[in-house]
Amino acid sequence: MKNSIGSNVTLTVFGESHGPLIGAVLDGLPAGFAIDMERLRRDMARRKAKGKISTQRHEADEVHIVSGFFEGRTTGTPLTLLIQNTAQRSADYASLKYRLRPSHADWSAFEKYHGFQDYRGGGHFSGRLTAVLVACGSICRQILAAKGVKIGAHLAQVHTVRDVPFCADACALDTQIEALDAREFPAIDEQAGLAMVARIEQAACAKDSVGGVVECAITHFPAGVGEPLFDSVESVLSHALFSIPAIKGVEFGEGFGFAALTGSEANDALLVREGKIETKTNRNAGINGGITNAMPIVFRCVVKPTPSIFQKQQSVRFDSKEEVELEIQGRHDPCIAHRACVVIESMSAFALLDLWMSQAARAPFEEVVR
Amino acid sequence: MKNSIGSNVTLTVFGESHGPLIGAVLDGLPAGFAIDMERLRRDMARRKAKGKISTQRHEADEVHIVSGFFEGRTTGTPLTLLIQNTAQRSADYASLKYRLRPSHADWSAFEKYHGFQDYRGGGHFSGRLTAVLVACGSICRQILAAKGVKIGAHLAQVHTVRDVPFCADACALDTQIEALDAREFPAIDEQAGLAMVARIEQAACAKDSVGGVVECAITHFPAGVGEPLFDSVESVLSHALFSIPAIKGVEFGEGFGFAALTGSEANDALLVREGKIETKTNRNAGINGGITNAMPIVFRCVVKPTPSIFQKQQSVRFDSKEEVELEIQGRHDPCIAHRACVVIESMSAFALLDLWMSQAARAPFEEVVR
Amino acid sequence: MKNSIGSNVTLTVFGESHGPLIGAVLDGLPAGFAIDMERLRRDMARRKAKGKISTQRHEADEVHIVSGFFEGRTTGTPLTLLIQNTAQRSADYASLKYRLRPSHADWSAFEKYHGFQDYRGGGHFSGRLTAVLVACGSICRQILAAKGVKIGAHLAQVHTVRDVPFCADACALDTQIEALDAREFPAIDEQAGLAMVARIEQAACAKDSVGGVVECAITHFPAGVGEPLFDSVESVLSHALFSIPAIKGVEFGEGFGFAALTGSEANDALLVREGKIETKTNRNAGINGGITNAMPIVFRCVVKPTPSIFQKQQSVRFDSKEEVELEIQGRHDPCIAHRACVVIESMSAFALLDLWMSQAARAPFEEVVR
Amino acid sequence: MKNSIGSNVTLTVFGESHGPLIGAVLDGLPAGFAIDMERLRRDMARRKAKGKISTQRHEADEVHIVSGFFEGRTTGTPLTLLIQNTAQRSADYASLKYRLRPSHADWSAFEKYHGFQDYRGGGHFSGRLTAVLVACGSICRQILAAKGVKIGAHLAQVHTVRDVPFCADACALDTQIEALDAREFPAIDEQAGLAMVARIEQAACAKDSVGGVVECAITHFPAGVGEPLFDSVESVLSHALFSIPAIKGVEFGEGFGFAALTGSEANDALLVREGKIETKTNRNAGINGGITNAMPIVFRCVVKPTPSIFQKQQSVRFDSKEEVELEIQGRHDPCIAHRACVVIESMSAFALLDLWMSQAARAPFEEVVR
Repeated sequence: MKNSIGSNVTLTVFGESHGPLIGAVLDGLPAGFAIDMERLRRDMARRKAKGKISTQRHEADEVHIVSGFFEGRTTGTPLTLLIQNTAQRSADYASLKYRLRPSHADWSAFEKYHGFQDYRGGGHFSGRLTAVLVACGSICRQILAAKGVKIGAHLAQVHTVRDVPFCADACALDTQIEALDAREFPAIDEQAGLAMVARIEQAACAKDSVGGVVECAITHFPAGVGEPLFDSVESVLSHALFSIPAIKGVEFGEGFGFAALTGSEANDALLVREGKIETKTNRNAGINGGITNAMPIVFRCVVKPTPSIFQKQQSVRFDSKEEVELEIQGRHDPCIAHRACVVIESMSAFALLDLWMSQAARAPFEEVVR
Repeated sequence: MKNSIGSNVTLTVFGESHGPLIGAVLDGLPAGFAIDMERLRRDMARRKAKGKISTQRHEADEVHIVSGFFEGRTTGTPLTLLIQNTAQRSADYASLKYRLRPSHADWSAFEKYHGFQDYRGGGHFSGRLTAVLVACGSICRQILAAKGVKIGAHLAQVHTVRDVPFCADACALDTQIEALDAREFPAIDEQAGLAMVARIEQAACAKDSVGGVVECAITHFPAGVGEPLFDSVESVLSHALFSIPAIKGVEFGEGFGFAALTGSEANDALLVREGKIETKTNRNAGINGGITNAMPIVFRCVVKPTPSIFQKQQSVRFDSKEEVELEIQGRHDPCIAHRACVVIESMSAFALLDLWMSQAARAPFEEVVR
Repeated sequence: MKNSIGSNVTLTVFGESHGPLIGAVLDGLPAGFAIDMERLRRDMARRKAKGKISTQRHEADEVHIVSGFFEGRTTGTPLTLLIQNTAQRSADYASLKYRLRPSHADWSAFEKYHGFQDYRGGGHFSGRLTAVLVACGSICRQILAAKGVKIGAHLAQVHTVRDVPFCADACALDTQIEALDAREFPAIDEQAGLAMVARIEQAACAKDSVGGVVECAITHFPAGVGEPLFDSVESVLSHALFSIPAIKGVEFGEGFGFAALTGSEANDALLVREGKIETKTNRNAGINGGITNAMPIVFRCVVKPTPSIFQKQQSVRFDSKEEVELEIQGRHDPCIAHRACVVIESMSAFALLDLWMSQAARAPFEEVVR
Repeated sequence: MKNSIGSNVTLTVFGESHGPLIGAVLDGLPAGFAIDMERLRRDMARRKAKGKISTQRHEADEVHIVSGFFEGRTTGTPLTLLIQNTAQRSADYASLKYRLRPSHADWSAFEKYHGFQDYRGGGHFSGRLTAVLVACGSICRQILAAKGVKIGAHLAQVHTVRDVPFCADACALDTQIEALDAREFPAIDEQAGLAMVARIEQAACAKDSVGGVVECAITHFPAGVGEPLFDSVESVLSHALFSIPAIKGVEFGEGFGFAALTGSEANDALLVREGKIETKTNRNAGINGGITNAMPIVFRCVVKPTPSIFQKQQSVRFDSKEEVELEIQGRHDPCIAHRACVVIESMSAFALLDLWMSQAARAPFEEVVR
């Protein structure tokens, strides 16, 4: 599928950092959904570069819906959105073509495309493409929200600075998610947020960058969604999440912490609350056997430090196979983890909407037998 | 796709723990490949339950190839393999149907299938199905091996006991992979291995279980494989890996460790060795922008502690929504992380073969222009 | 997808004519559906070789469901069925390997699989594999039948002998479909049926074979199913139908007859009957813009004459590239069009169930807005 | 997949007749292919409305490639092309929303999208979308042409006027294909072409429309491409062809003519010519068992008469379920079969490129064994 993802709802993404535009086709949407364009703009704004903690490339990122949208509602046919590129400075890259930026896609792209790729600003590999992921994800989360689902993410960690984690309790978690939606910087603990900003600014001053961890939670998602084996909720979510540039790890619930637990510590005891089954703890993150159980879905993604740093680096020319010293020019983010929060929410919204549809496909034929 | 995975080579898995058999269809294989049945048997043996550190359910796990295989070679049409179930003890589960085992798929399966699922021994959710993954994975890795690719995994951690990590150096790594292939227990450091076995036996004695971490490495895999965005190597591998029961986290290279690094620490400097481009470090695990760069692919998976423990647990009946005490009977693994190593290798082999084929599909049309 | 088809419900087929068994995996079925095994057996019987008008290879064709089926109902996990091959006579093929049978897949299979294919009895290309299509199709049609859908096919033509066509009137059509279900030979007009049998027997006597046309109708299928452009009902049905060996043409409604019509003759006028919209004629076969409109879906498939005839034929050896005379041995059908009827119904049932599920996937999200 | 098609190369189409633009994403293309923009323009021109035999809506149909194309060559990342709509006259449709045009998608679209579809000019169902199919198909055929493949289509029939058929002989066929490429009107016999034009003009005068048949041939396509069963060449081609609006039948080679043949008449005898295997006749159209054999691929598609005619028609209002008389306004084609030729060639080019890639995916692993 390459640059398309999904089964009942599909997302196809195109464009390059220094081309005329980037965009996406979102197909399989329900017909008649009234998109809240204000909400979409707010989601786009959450991804935008801000202040000293982000790149100085500022894009308007205005989203133009050019198909599948009529009189304010989805038509049910492919919805296409385009975002113009306006602030390219391709000159920054002219001398870079064959000089491989360490830990960027330059080298691997040369190997794959034999030098025919648009190398300017990372081309199709640019983090810029996440703008369309957010626009599409905003539509998906609005559809999920109409069914009561909430999605929120925060920066759990920037370098060594940590935020408080999400609450285990679903009610308290909802409150945290709502509070985050109004925050300028995606930290639950505002003090931690300030410390994170300071840490990123410090990295920027040092011509360096820092990594981070994003924690994401989804509440009020129905039970019974996901498939055994290959389309487990974890499989489908991680597939979507690892497609976001710079994500190098994904863990659900207790995640890597499970390794040092015993079964008696790790198991989520079952109980009944107000007539409904729940678990006492939620170490499995609302997913058992790859299928949701109605508890909150919670996962964490690690975002590596931006590879574009302004320090001198040891590199190689792809054409001549010579070792060179490289000093990257241009405008770059000293950290992208905070901007990644809304991208992660967006890809989760897409993946979960698609999984839910998969389950819904069988519904009319199961009603017959029940 | 649900119980099928892959694009150019596809894998479809079926069966239940207490049904007559389990099996798989592997389609899209090259024609004429001579399968080494002895190697396949050895891979199956590596997954088998052994001694006190595994379940006492012992299955012969003899693999019957019933289609797509003629005169010792693949025909190119769908290869189907079947493994009989012979050691079921369904009586162990008769009283369990509505009593949900904590952290098992029981609850979520009830929500999904409305009680029509085969609940005996976990049914389709059983770890037993990983036997067919290993059989199919063994064929895929043999095909990759014919092109020089090596794949190996070891137990990096069991509870708090740790093995030495894989070497960064590709040559040394090859030696480690070869050594592991001959090991009874998948640890690089044999002393660590003994300590792990002891830790698992201790958990078994305590009617408990333990989790672990598996580290897997792939060497000599070509550069330029993988797709930007949605079919990144990380996306495709994690999709396959999270389909293995009990895997709750996947990280590539430095993984969650990236969070606390700066870019200047995290970037892999480029250099030229014997006329070939390499990186000094390999924190990105051979993958940049979702595409391979010919350096070793290295990742780690966390395996949660087996949820089946013999202690009393707090649970719920699904039918009456009553809280009950549950004591699981039957035969269970006090740890599955060591048995998971070969399963992880297998799913990696499948996923990487499929990705390579995707790249190969374009080759005849690119030769024209180069 | 190769040997798999479908999106929400998927069908994977495997096996060879002279291997131990043939089979299929049907995934994505609703959970809890009680399969009528007697009905399944009857559908299998309709495909069976009979009398002088069919091959003398007689297979029991007993269907063993080995997964996804528990206590008489579907579980919702992959349903696998196996059919043993019992009546192979591989010796008939020993001398044939390199001698290409005209208009068979022998030559193209050699080109594709480089000689590694199982050539005995056509291997994976054998019409024998349609037995599993019928078994799976029988399950799909039973699910559709529970929602009121009827499917029937008859032999519209054998060589120059013609049956009466299906009625345009939906009620009369239902009666025809029901009557066909009880027929030994799939002709609406029993006299035409006898003439067809005579024509086939005549071909058999002449060591020759004959072709035919199958007309298939589906009634009470809901409106609004199918997708614009690439997953039009015609696209999805024809994809499924052309996968049946020997089908070389598919036409919907007026089909090739449209060429010689004017728009004013061809258009289906709209009217209201008992408060419901209908069309006066149904030349578009219940499909407009690729989407169903609740009128009967009607199409015709041509089945070419069986290429296996007992006359001397001019051929070529693949290995030596020598011209040879070929006299085919073994047991073959002088016509397969009558046996194809139930296969065509089966693939239609599968394809339409899948398309309906695709539409159902969006339903919960559209209810919100309506 | 809905509005996407293909496996190794995928095509996603979007847009509506009266929206701002239509477009497509073509993903999976080889990197470095130099697109001949002049050839692309010529293919677009072949589809354009001309004279009295076409609609009076004249669109510039200028193709803007906005991604995946750099310095005149494909980059290997998604190629996106956009075509502006400039000549909409939406007022023509204002009164039409609920008045269903007979044999159009109006009714079925209402059933599917509950009235939220963009109904103006057929919206997403408009034949206008075939413009992007031609643009994408032109790129695919250029890639195939670089490997020697030729594709051509002609109007075999308009109403009762017939063209001469394609030659059976491959050399003569190549000459016919080349000659057609230069023709203003796609008929092999220019006299037949003039008669066809006259017949279409006559229909236009009578406020009516006519149907037709298109015959398409592909030469020099390699043997061994296509998959048994579900991805047979016939399945994949027909899937693509039936996605073109107004196509209601597809037949390969002898097609429906097979019904009245005996096997001894229908079989293609094999022979050796200049050291290569060929068939004496080519009734199977270069495809046996769903797989190519290197002989020309030949098929015919029926195009129904344009449903938009200017005569009074009996119709129904969807909202009130009242019967109404309808007189269609606007600009419409009295025949679309001649414009369909290049669309049919285009979808064939796409489908065959994709199938070839599927076969190529296995090549590196088969070279090992041969």
